Amino acid sequence: MTDQATLADRADTFRSISAATGEAEGPAFPVHGTADVEAACAAAAAAFDAYRGTDAETRSRFLEQIGEEIEAIGDTLIETASRESGLPRARLEGERGRTIGQLKLFAEVVRAGAWRGLRIDTALPDRQPLPRPDLRLRTVPLGPVAVFGASNFPLAFSTAGGDTASALAAGCPVVVKGHPAHPATGELVAEAIRKAVAASGLPDGVFGHLTGPGNDLGSALVQDPRIAAVGFTGSRGGGMALVRLAQARPVPIPVYAEMSSINPVVLMPEALRARGAALGMAFVGSLTMGAGQFCTNPGLVVAVEGEGLDAFLNAARTALGDAPSSTMLTPGIHAAYTKGVEDLSSHPQVETVGRGSVGSPTCGQAGLFATTAAAFLADEALGHEIFGASSLLVRCRDEAELIGVLQAAEGQLTATIQMDAGDTDAAARLVPVLELKAGRVLVNGWPTGVEVAHAMVHGGPFPATSDGRTTSVGSLAIDRFLRPVSYQNLPAELLPPELRNGGQAGAPLLLDGKAV
Amino acid sequence: MTDQATLADRADTFRSISAATGEAEGPAFPVHGTADVEAACAAAAAAFDAYRGTDAETRSRFLEQIGEEIEAIGDTLIETASRESGLPRARLEGERGRTIGQLKLFAEVVRAGAWRGLRIDTALPDRQPLPRPDLRLRTVPLGPVAVFGASNFPLAFSTAGGDTASALAAGCPVVVKGHPAHPATGELVAEAIRKAVAASGLPDGVFGHLTGPGNDLGSALVQDPRIAAVGFTGSRGGGMALVRLAQARPVPIPVYAEMSSINPVVLMPEALRARGAALGMAFVGSLTMGAGQFCTNPGLVVAVEGEGLDAFLNAARTALGDAPSSTMLTPGIHAAYTKGVEDLSSHPQVETVGRGSVGSPTCGQAGLFATTAAAFLADEALGHEIFGASSLLVRCRDEAELIGVLQAAEGQLTATIQMDAGDTDAAARLVPVLELKAGRVLVNGWPTGVEVAHAMVHGGPFPATSDGRTTSVGSLAIDRFLRPVSYQNLPAELLPPELRNGGQAGAPLLLDGKAV
Repeated sequence: MTDQATLADRADTFRSISAATGEAEGPAFPVHGTADVEAACAAAAAAFDAYRGTDAETRSRFLEQIGEEIEAIGDTLIETASRESGLPRARLEGERGRTIGQLKLFAEVVRAGAWRGLRIDTALPDRQPLPRPDLRLRTVPLGPVAVFGASNFPLAFSTAGGDTASALAAGCPVVVKGHPAHPATGELVAEAIRKAVAASGLPDGVFGHLTGPGNDLGSALVQDPRIAAVGFTGSRGGGMALVRLAQARPVPIPVYAEMSSINPVVLMPEALRARGAALGMAFVGSLTMGAGQFCTNPGLVVAVEGEGLDAFLNAARTALGDAPSSTMLTPGIHAAYTKGVEDLSSHPQVETVGRGSVGSPTCGQAGLFATTAAAFLADEALGHEIFGASSLLVRCRDEAELIGVLQAAEGQLTATIQMDAGDTDAAARLVPVLELKAGRVLVNGWPTGVEVAHAMVHGGPFPATSDGRTTSVGSLAIDRFLRPVSYQNLPAELLPPELRNGGQAGAPLLLDGKAV
Repeated sequence: MTDQATLADRADTFRSISAATGEAEGPAFPVHGTADVEAACAAAAAAFDAYRGTDAETRSRFLEQIGEEIEAIGDTLIETASRESGLPRARLEGERGRTIGQLKLFAEVVRAGAWRGLRIDTALPDRQPLPRPDLRLRTVPLGPVAVFGASNFPLAFSTAGGDTASALAAGCPVVVKGHPAHPATGELVAEAIRKAVAASGLPDGVFGHLTGPGNDLGSALVQDPRIAAVGFTGSRGGGMALVRLAQARPVPIPVYAEMSSINPVVLMPEALRARGAALGMAFVGSLTMGAGQFCTNPGLVVAVEGEGLDAFLNAARTALGDAPSSTMLTPGIHAAYTKGVEDLSSHPQVETVGRGSVGSPTCGQAGLFATTAAAFLADEALGHEIFGASSLLVRCRDEAELIGVLQAAEGQLTATIQMDAGDTDAAARLVPVLELKAGRVLVNGWPTGVEVAHAMVHGGPFPATSDGRTTSVGSLAIDRFLRPVSYQNLPAELLPPELRNGGQAGAPLLLDGKAV
């Protein structure tokens, strides 16, 4: 908990900013400095061996316990998060459920044991010309992980969010750099995790929590030699700054930064013809949900010119006008959104299709804009993300031009096809293009809404993320914090228990190349 | 094949340098330039979709065919490689077997299908408050891969070596930058691969081969926007240069550089007492094999002072004197080795334990040196790799100091414990230290000799490699060239065949979180 006695001695503290009013409010939080980074990283490093040595049941129960402690905070958590983020209660209640569900999923994953990657190649002492040694492989956790929470999911992608859950599941202590847009929410969740650490009899250093409004704190954290990997969700600029710092270290470390995506939605001709208006309405629902503040917000729409497209645009224009405007997460995000939309709408090759209603000064005004494929291909700035409820329709003359637009787009988290049965042949030509461009390909859905599941990928080629080989949502995310180690001819008593004969405890094993 | 007619028109060609004589010999090879890089990358990109779309049987047969074509070169390959590298015939025959075996292993891996990473989460249309979509996950290959061959394994880590085999297995076209120390060997193998490409009915661009003596060619290759990943085995300087280039691209790409390792060997007290002399002799065998030119050469020995250590050193000194000296791979490697040993032996805190025999001017003179733990900890230069048959013994006062030395060492490919039964308790305290420091931990063996197997890791923390999350040897290496993609609510006819219901063709599947 924030120690008010200590705080009184500090030169610097900071407070929550209400999303709705822009006013500072509530208690003061410490602006942590280098000594705090040092202490948190030292504690994490000291806790690493004990924590990675926990058995599956202890670690799984710990993850579940974090969920229970978050649940136990009760309505205070929802109220606090709503005040700090401007997000409505219902959304935050759902997000809380998702956060707790995610911890439970990783508890199951830890118990099931596939993440251990167990492999045994038995010795062949009589092989000619040389015997084969006994080789056994498992994964080990990378080490203490620095997690940077996101502003747009104050629960599910923040203090106890996906990166924290997957790193803890992998056996890595975590040091969270709390997002300064929701310090009170972050501190409530951090305290829940600390309670779970204590209840599970784990060393304190398994979880650390650093707070402060500036960038220096995060920079110091990423540069600390005891930090072995970084999880980040946020802007392209912020993510790339951390990537550069991590690469410049004497010992470089991986950074998993989820950064920038405009999530192309392709409207196929038959679907437009059959249900252009319905698509326009549904699209605006996805675009404006949560003031458009989703990494998977549909910021790019691509379609071939035609009759159905007009129906889509007319319906979208109407729906936009009807959509309520929403408070944005922070004044900074609001300002960046407003600037981005101004630049886009004043672009000589861009027309404004429609705008949303104007709300209070902290609300973002939604917008749908349109341009031609030729203009899009000529100016790469038209492919940059505007974080918020803004989208750009690119009008194409034919399928070839449409594919050219998709190939020219940067790497994406998602790519969506809206199609009817008559579009199948053309869609089959798109899938091979889209699967190389994005981490997730959808048909007849909207990219907002990321299921926490085994078969989910929330990732994708640069700049959607800094490392497209991994995901930040779903059970596969545990792999990003592990690396393989091979043990050659170790006597049984020196082997990790899960690599001894018969010690797999239900975890899958590749024995001499065969799954058993 | 090298086209002599075209070569006559070139301003620049280069020739093989005989390892034994240092003289240029044999035919001229082209010095490829930016136009050649452009052509090779364009062809690779054009071939990517067709190649990644091959079925398992076609791709597996292609890998096997490469092996058959290499076999069919016959003795010319061994003679050529021996002349260019100075390595003896028997070693190269073994290396050829390993190269072909590696291709066969990846053919099996492709057929077995675990690399596809298949996962299906079935739709839950009635779930409250929101339905769950149908989610299906598989891996896709990253794209065309640039492979930099190593000088010290002209077959197994070069043109058709591990990186080429695993990238082709993953579905990635490969552009090899041939190692200039063995251009004739490289061209023989490249032609074998081209024959296999043609015999398999694949597009030419599946395999490209660029040659030249300088660094510009490799730099251009890594910077080509169509290259999606890089495999490299070589020096720390060379590897880091490629890493920096890859990170500075507009779209950064992963570089798997296997670079620098001194492979600590810990001599435990009971083992030293029981068989110090035998360990000394066996150690020198590992140290001097192949003129010490292995990534896994034991360049660091760590032991607690004691009686058995003297027996080890005396035996090692004698064995060193008896060991024949061997021709080194290139004049440059020889010069760097000689310089490294001179610097080490003239270090004020380093004593020379023994030296090997002096051979011809192209031979490396083996050396074993010793220092104290205090000196080792005070000067990080003592922990740097000297590529060749040089090793440094670090004398420790006690186990605590020994563990301090191991913890201070950089990341390693391997770490070895020489122990007897009475050392078990102490060894159990070392394993957790070593498994965080290295990709492979061995007991009572020597690190040279890397088995191509399922449970092998030839990798490790920086600077052993630039990415310790992966391996360059063994079947797990296929994963480095893949990334996951999730497909949401795709109609069956748009899904990749292996993600359709019942389409797994024997590949393992995680269905709703359960292995089936």
